[in-house]
Amino acid sequence: MKIAVDAMGGDNAPAAIVAGVEQARDRFADLEFILYGNVDQVKPLVKDQTRITMIPTTEEIAMGEEPVRAIRRKKDSSMVRAAMAVKKGEADAFFSAGNTGAVLAAGIFLVGRIKGIDRPGLTSVLPVGNPQSDTKQLVYLDTGANAENKEINLVQYAYLGKFYAENMFGVKNPRIALLNNGAEEDKGDPLHKDVWQRLNRRDDLNFIGNVESGDLLAGKADVIVSDGWTANAALKASEGTAKIMLSLIRDGIMNGGWRAKIGYLLLRPVFHSVGHKMSASTYGGAILLGLKAPVVKTHGSSDATAVANTIAQIHQMVSSKMIERTVNFFGKADHLKEMDN
Amino acid sequence: MKIAVDAMGGDNAPAAIVAGVEQARDRFADLEFILYGNVDQVKPLVKDQTRITMIPTTEEIAMGEEPVRAIRRKKDSSMVRAAMAVKKGEADAFFSAGNTGAVLAAGIFLVGRIKGIDRPGLTSVLPVGNPQSDTKQLVYLDTGANAENKEINLVQYAYLGKFYAENMFGVKNPRIALLNNGAEEDKGDPLHKDVWQRLNRRDDLNFIGNVESGDLLAGKADVIVSDGWTANAALKASEGTAKIMLSLIRDGIMNGGWRAKIGYLLLRPVFHSVGHKMSASTYGGAILLGLKAPVVKTHGSSDATAVANTIAQIHQMVSSKMIERTVNFFGKADHLKEMDN
Repeated sequence: MKIAVDAMGGDNAPAAIVAGVEQARDRFADLEFILYGNVDQVKPLVKDQTRITMIPTTEEIAMGEEPVRAIRRKKDSSMVRAAMAVKKGEADAFFSAGNTGAVLAAGIFLVGRIKGIDRPGLTSVLPVGNPQSDTKQLVYLDTGANAENKEINLVQYAYLGKFYAENMFGVKNPRIALLNNGAEEDKGDPLHKDVWQRLNRRDDLNFIGNVESGDLLAGKADVIVSDGWTANAALKASEGTAKIMLSLIRDGIMNGGWRAKIGYLLLRPVFHSVGHKMSASTYGGAILLGLKAPVVKTHGSSDATAVANTIAQIHQMVSSKMIERTVNFFGKADHLKEMDN
Repeated sequence: MKIAVDAMGGDNAPAAIVAGVEQARDRFADLEFILYGNVDQVKPLVKDQTRITMIPTTEEIAMGEEPVRAIRRKKDSSMVRAAMAVKKGEADAFFSAGNTGAVLAAGIFLVGRIKGIDRPGLTSVLPVGNPQSDTKQLVYLDTGANAENKEINLVQYAYLGKFYAENMFGVKNPRIALLNNGAEEDKGDPLHKDVWQRLNRRDDLNFIGNVESGDLLAGKADVIVSDGWTANAALKASEGTAKIMLSLIRDGIMNGGWRAKIGYLLLRPVFHSVGHKMSASTYGGAILLGLKAPVVKTHGSSDATAVANTIAQIHQMVSSKMIERTVNFFGKADHLKEMDN
């Protein structure tokens, strides 16, 4: 199994990328890597070249660049070269911690959509924070912030999410919910009302109805589908609030005198476990589902461990033959016709 | 100053409502109350009838009822009677902890919109969780979850939010931001791009641009305006996450043995202060801005203190003559014409 890696993307690139790749290489004997990037910078960082090939590139796509233009113009960038390797069949998956928009554009335009998929869905795995819930994680899509999702896209996301939950986490008959502004069938704007009906009609989906964003992390569903606009607003609000709660507690401890500081020392394992549970990097990168190969983007701030975890996620996606399953399912024309009604 | 109170609305009604009214009455010498409700239940709860009039009603609007139908049919409900008292000029403001949709419908159809306001905005005051920020609270609207806001509504919300921040919190020249899916001017769907331009054109607004939902509680703005759909999704996600973080910490303490429990005792003041800061009831109720009188709804689960705090908020709204200021501003036809362009 070969993974094409954009070694230059991300705040800590190339050091964190190379270190993460080496960790993952040591964990999985069947993994090989092609690292695309500035060889002068990358080569000295590689401690052991076993199963790692380096390919020099001359350009980089920066964080603020306009994504589509960047991937069209910078043909010799580490990102475009890595995506092209997948397109040409030289690698099985594409990984980057760089400019999110550019990763999405490279995925859509270079790696390409699976036949039958109208629009790929950016997918995050979120923690379930309810200690009473048996559910450990949630598959959540589309978090791509685009405001143009149509009904049919959300129905396709339900299948993409279902396959992900089954293949990656072994969830049996995953519970699928629709993110909406109320629990009842008739809630939401025309798009959400229509999607509710379409999802409810599908015999092969375990559709459990609407979930409100207040219950995003409550473990009520295994997969939550949403238009990109709403999913992104809810996800960022949730991440921002988690960060702010921790900073308020930290601030209280710093200003709370010796009692608070001793209290912190005693509670440190609890804070660590909550912090670990709520941290985005625990759950790997964001996956662009619906493409012909795994295209995965980690946070720009990822360290080596986060990079290695994300590569483990890609390894599982390829091993479990999730893409083949998706191609197979959407390749049947009758599925698509039914879905469109 | 007279406040018409729906004594029967809310999970803890009428006991918490009556107790909260008495607390507020004891705090403000210029406050009088008319309590609408089942006299057999309400009367025994009132300890001291000073400045409290009771008016018997025979119906109640339940939490699950369809709002518009409920307020049309249940003419002798505590909620409709209280709203009607404001409409008839017998009271200065209307307060309820009951069915949110019905409170909004009673506000719009019975109390009525200010001339020049196309759609009132449901407004919440949120905590600013950033310890480094001087800003203490945020005025946030429209949280009404409706998906049909137009450009002009959001421009009007900017003024309603500005007046609220100035009159209620004494904020000078409040910083106004637009909730959007990115920081730059050209982010978002056509509605958000257009609203950005309209807000930016207004000389009398201190418009600072877009804010993403990840920065909702970061103190970057004094007022954040949004369409109701997005605002509601982000607010509920934030509330849900805060709740889940606290429950994860609680769970960790319960299962963390004696060390964790002693740690908790030492850190209790910190948890209390964070819990207080993040609690919705600290900041009073949700206000339907743009109506001819204050219409305020507290959480259904409000206790007596939350009820009293919400009444204090109404007291300040009336004392500061915010409604008169709004009527005056929107009454000038040229403002509206300009805003529409």
